[in-house]
Amino acid sequence: MRVLGVDPGLTRCGVGVVEGVAGRPLTMIGVGVVRTPADAELGHRLVAVEQGIEQWLDEHRPEFVAVERVFSQHNVRTVMGTAQASAVAMLCAARRGIPVALHTPSEVKAAVTGSGRADKAQVGAMVTRLLRLGAPPKPADAADALALAICHIWRAPAQNRLQQAVALHTATAPTRASKGRTA
Amino acid sequence: MRVLGVDPGLTRCGVGVVEGVAGRPLTMIGVGVVRTPADAELGHRLVAVEQGIEQWLDEHRPEFVAVERVFSQHNVRTVMGTAQASAVAMLCAARRGIPVALHTPSEVKAAVTGSGRADKAQVGAMVTRLLRLGAPPKPADAADALALAICHIWRAPAQNRLQQAVALHTATAPTRASKGRTA
Repeated sequence: MRVLGVDPGLTRCGVGVVEGVAGRPLTMIGVGVVRTPADAELGHRLVAVEQGIEQWLDEHRPEFVAVERVFSQHNVRTVMGTAQASAVAMLCAARRGIPVALHTPSEVKAAVTGSGRADKAQVGAMVTRLLRLGAPPKPADAADALALAICHIWRAPAQNRLQQAVALHTATAPTRASKGRTA
Repeated sequence: MRVLGVDPGLTRCGVGVVEGVAGRPLTMIGVGVVRTPADAELGHRLVAVEQGIEQWLDEHRPEFVAVERVFSQHNVRTVMGTAQASAVAMLCAARRGIPVALHTPSEVKAAVTGSGRADKAQVGAMVTRLLRLGAPPKPADAADALALAICHIWRAPAQNRLQQAVALHTATAPTRASKGRTA
């Protein structure tokens, strides 16, 4: 599967495309950053993010888009820009019918380093190793985007099996399933 | 001037178009709500908001779009949806080259009721009176969208004069202006 990872941001929006399946070596297809000027009007910055994401979708035709899930407990100004940039990324993907998955920062860190509290350097080092790169991708937003794509490829089989199990269970025993949930 | 006001939200996004100038009676051109199903995937909901806003822009051709400024001190889940819906509204406007203005909830309340702490009912009552409607627009999101448009029409002349004064001052006395700011 080919996945575009997006580390959303208005000033720097990290993008990275990874191809592969769980249990096999992964391949980096592309990595970069969509930047918008901090002094531009918000509407224009969102248009620039949209154009950047559209270019990446056009060029690399990913089958899935994985976006970092945004939480609002952080800095107020930053989180708004992040939420807005992530909305644009999700919009671009959904408009083309590409499935969008959200992963939390700790899910991503745990997937690539084994620890949900790993720091930027550790994530960068593991992304470099897993994709067999010569050096860690810079800036950190670009490395994070690749980590998101890797996380999605590795989590997808488990998520698919879970969804299939739920679907099967719901189809065969709807009454027991709904009872079980309220009990 | 013709203004589209947008009270952003994923479940209910209020939209209202008002035409007029400050100091003259205003006219409501249209009011409504763009809804998206709460159980749909986030990406699909954002696409639905985009399609709804695009329809309003196509049909009413506003010269300005006024969007409620989102703060993150409120409920975490709600504010994320609001930020994402507002990003889509700003994107749609900016893509067409329509200027986007953000107004805070208290600016809007103060503009239409005289108090920044007015409640929903008071805002609804004043919108009804100012636009000479038979009854308050329902739901409250629709009334809020009209209040945003009214607020923009009334604040625009003052904002324009301020911008012109700043531009003039900067053009004629750049050194004094920058000294003045740091003093």
